[in-house]
Amino acid sequence: MNTYKERAGLIEQAAKACNTTVYKEKEVPNKDLTPRTTSLTKSSKVMSLEDAIRHTGLKDGMTISFHHHFRGGDKVVNLVVDKLAQMGYKNLHLAASSLIDVHEPLIEHIKNGVISKISTSGLRGELGRQVSLGLMKEPVIFRSHGNRGAAIASGELHIDVAFIGASSSDPMGNACGYSRYPTAKSICGSLGYALPDAQHADHVVILTDDLVPYPNNPKSISELNVEAVVEVESVGDASKISSGAIRDTKNPRDILLAQTAAKVVENSGYFEDGFSIQTGSGGASLAVVKFIRQSMIDRNIKASFALGGITAHMVKMHEEGLIERLIDVQSFDKVAAESLMNDRKHKEASSIEYAAYNEPSAATRMLDIVILSALEVDVNFNVNVLVGSDGIIRGAIGGHPDTAADSALSIIVCPLLRGRIPCVVNEVTTLITPGSGVDVVVTEYGIAVNPRRPEIAERLTKAGLNVVDIHDLAARAQKIIGDAAPLPFGDKVVGVVLNRDGSVLDVIKNIVEPTN
Amino acid sequence: MNTYKERAGLIEQAAKACNTTVYKEKEVPNKDLTPRTTSLTKSSKVMSLEDAIRHTGLKDGMTISFHHHFRGGDKVVNLVVDKLAQMGYKNLHLAASSLIDVHEPLIEHIKNGVISKISTSGLRGELGRQVSLGLMKEPVIFRSHGNRGAAIASGELHIDVAFIGASSSDPMGNACGYSRYPTAKSICGSLGYALPDAQHADHVVILTDDLVPYPNNPKSISELNVEAVVEVESVGDASKISSGAIRDTKNPRDILLAQTAAKVVENSGYFEDGFSIQTGSGGASLAVVKFIRQSMIDRNIKASFALGGITAHMVKMHEEGLIERLIDVQSFDKVAAESLMNDRKHKEASSIEYAAYNEPSAATRMLDIVILSALEVDVNFNVNVLVGSDGIIRGAIGGHPDTAADSALSIIVCPLLRGRIPCVVNEVTTLITPGSGVDVVVTEYGIAVNPRRPEIAERLTKAGLNVVDIHDLAARAQKIIGDAAPLPFGDKVVGVVLNRDGSVLDVIKNIVEPTN
Repeated sequence: MNTYKERAGLIEQAAKACNTTVYKEKEVPNKDLTPRTTSLTKSSKVMSLEDAIRHTGLKDGMTISFHHHFRGGDKVVNLVVDKLAQMGYKNLHLAASSLIDVHEPLIEHIKNGVISKISTSGLRGELGRQVSLGLMKEPVIFRSHGNRGAAIASGELHIDVAFIGASSSDPMGNACGYSRYPTAKSICGSLGYALPDAQHADHVVILTDDLVPYPNNPKSISELNVEAVVEVESVGDASKISSGAIRDTKNPRDILLAQTAAKVVENSGYFEDGFSIQTGSGGASLAVVKFIRQSMIDRNIKASFALGGITAHMVKMHEEGLIERLIDVQSFDKVAAESLMNDRKHKEASSIEYAAYNEPSAATRMLDIVILSALEVDVNFNVNVLVGSDGIIRGAIGGHPDTAADSALSIIVCPLLRGRIPCVVNEVTTLITPGSGVDVVVTEYGIAVNPRRPEIAERLTKAGLNVVDIHDLAARAQKIIGDAAPLPFGDKVVGVVLNRDGSVLDVIKNIVEPTN
Repeated sequence: MNTYKERAGLIEQAAKACNTTVYKEKEVPNKDLTPRTTSLTKSSKVMSLEDAIRHTGLKDGMTISFHHHFRGGDKVVNLVVDKLAQMGYKNLHLAASSLIDVHEPLIEHIKNGVISKISTSGLRGELGRQVSLGLMKEPVIFRSHGNRGAAIASGELHIDVAFIGASSSDPMGNACGYSRYPTAKSICGSLGYALPDAQHADHVVILTDDLVPYPNNPKSISELNVEAVVEVESVGDASKISSGAIRDTKNPRDILLAQTAAKVVENSGYFEDGFSIQTGSGGASLAVVKFIRQSMIDRNIKASFALGGITAHMVKMHEEGLIERLIDVQSFDKVAAESLMNDRKHKEASSIEYAAYNEPSAATRMLDIVILSALEVDVNFNVNVLVGSDGIIRGAIGGHPDTAADSALSIIVCPLLRGRIPCVVNEVTTLITPGSGVDVVVTEYGIAVNPRRPEIAERLTKAGLNVVDIHDLAARAQKIIGDAAPLPFGDKVVGVVLNRDGSVLDVIKNIVEPTN
């Protein structure tokens, strides 16, 4: 007695025990004659930007997010916010991985109430200046890249809708920062800053300028996380990635600083076979790898990995066999982006994998040496990379505090003066990277070592390098320039700087512009 | 007035407004002199299996999971369950993607109370026989691969600890089913069935026989999901992947069936440039691609993708340019596994991306043609691939119901008889794939087409193929064999078969063995 009918009672019981229902075949519709592959576009997630926004259920007051992998070439932020403004949205929280000069049109959207809150790693250009002057009611929240990843993962920074520009996507949303198709229009390489958004946002919209056949592989972002795919004319201009803060330097002082920093690296005790290195943005820090290259060859030292901000120089050294692997949260130029596409030893890392303070396997924890730039360093080795000495927001936190804190050796390259502006000071205008993580400051007038690291000072002195007291550097700068007039800060808080663990590190007050 | 001290009040206020604390530098310890790269092994997640199990906090009664990508060569399930038994664990729920002959030692662990519940796609060999005879108190829950992925994602199947065998992992847990290092010991290719576990289990332990330098890239499983990495002698034997149900056939009847199925494909109306195809396990269905190859060349037809279970034949056709891309939830042999490692157009897919019923972009929804095998098909086109006609569990659901339901055209290849056992019957012993998704049944005595698909019958008839009524096939089988004696089923439910949407499709009753 074992017909299906006879088992009906047992099937019913099993469904109850499994807390589910019994299958009913009759409900299944007949298949139609359309081949699935040709019907793909019909059933896919491809729609207009306006439909995609509606589809996500975005409401006034919600949080939207963007990445800045195209840097100066980004086309997505302005496109989407224009559309949101046109659709009548108000009071949105814009949570970008960073904002730069190209995002100046946001000023109007802030004035019109479309954007009422901003979270970002940095602000530059006119947008930074206007925010510093008090453009926004709410202070801008500044986070490091590692903290942004951690905050998104923990839900502290909850994203309702992520708008992610991608250089290729299939109709299902398998997307990445390059395209393997002849139809490719753009390339940004790593989508590292967008990956936490893709994983944790409630809704994900991919914008792409190359809609490719399913399945787009390999992909950075999985179809499983994507709700809508929007085809646009352009997501970004790769030629503008390597501009502004990350351009190649020809400045002789930067080259001198880079050469000195290279000597610090070579004599630090960490320059051993298998070491790892990162260079932050800023001409001098980016240039350091050029100068350690010859020493690596001479001493037969190979790096296990380079991290970060990957540049064409690093790609070259990797291809020469001097750097085993590249870990790339952000491709700093087109060569790096193309290497990420073509080289399996060039790994894309999310900002969480890169630098989250609470992630045991964050790459920064495996980092030996990081070379970073600064707008200001003070006598307590605190660093400011965000606010100019004129009180205007003109930079970005980036991975500065993350890499400084986690690395075995952090080196800041920084001229004593930039024109009439002292860069080594008694106290930084804004605290971005606490001095506890800053080990060495390289200036053209000598190398200062944090008293927390006496053994490093000893090694550098022994190597014949010009180790000086940081107080002497600050005094020297002050002697040349004289006492600066106090900045005309107001009483309004225009920015809040979070530490990488989410605690508040500092606030930025508004600046009052001279009326003359 | 803008010193840090003077800003203290504002910083305090900002911290309150942000619902966080104020950063305190003094708490940060000094860095030590150890290079981070050499300290990597110290700070990593590498530990013994016993420590890893303790570290996860596994408790009696919890759910543990495994994948079966090594099929007959798997070494992980037995290794881990032996250790759990030794550590005194009881009453565990073992949720494997599938279990096969090699897992026979589980019988002892079931008898000893270490394992009290099993969820799987299938059971084979002595384990299947014993379960059929009533070995377990609780019925085994059978799920298709697509349903397992969906159930893990929804939390319906909650995994406490996933034990994932990987052919390489770095100390942080970046892991995959192959290794790019000369130290490689094993290869299984796709880890598709383990990916939902890696993403959704509370705790993930990687077992690997090749612990490689950080960062292992590209990886299938991210360090972010991994808590412990265990180095073991062997995770599996790749030479035993392609055995049992997925071996290459030399059986002349299978070859005839495959040739007929190829003709069905070619005349179905779906054999057009850009079509997609999957072949299930079973010699005849695997062999079909061999026979459509020449027609593809002759008619200048290229497939957009092959899905599934990827085999050496498919890899060859892909490399010849006949199949644009391979989507691989399970590499069916070592050649396929190596292709996954080396070929970017060979994409690894998780079982969710592959076939989850509630995932709009599941690959099965883009599938035109699937060729599947069967233990039994009945006159309502229902299929059984799990329970033998003797009532003994001896197969696996796999992706059978997922692909049948979602594809535009599903073709079952199945002999009329296997020895003295009829394969086309009036009613299947156990309902695994509902007839609503089954379009064509190919036997050596004719081709039956589901009445739900009259247009398909018309096309095949027009092409001169021998289209017959499925009732005639069943009658013919019955005529040859005669009426079979009813099977000696007992009244205990030993298995519950879930439909791909989680509803209950059928139950399997225990079988009483003859005592002679």
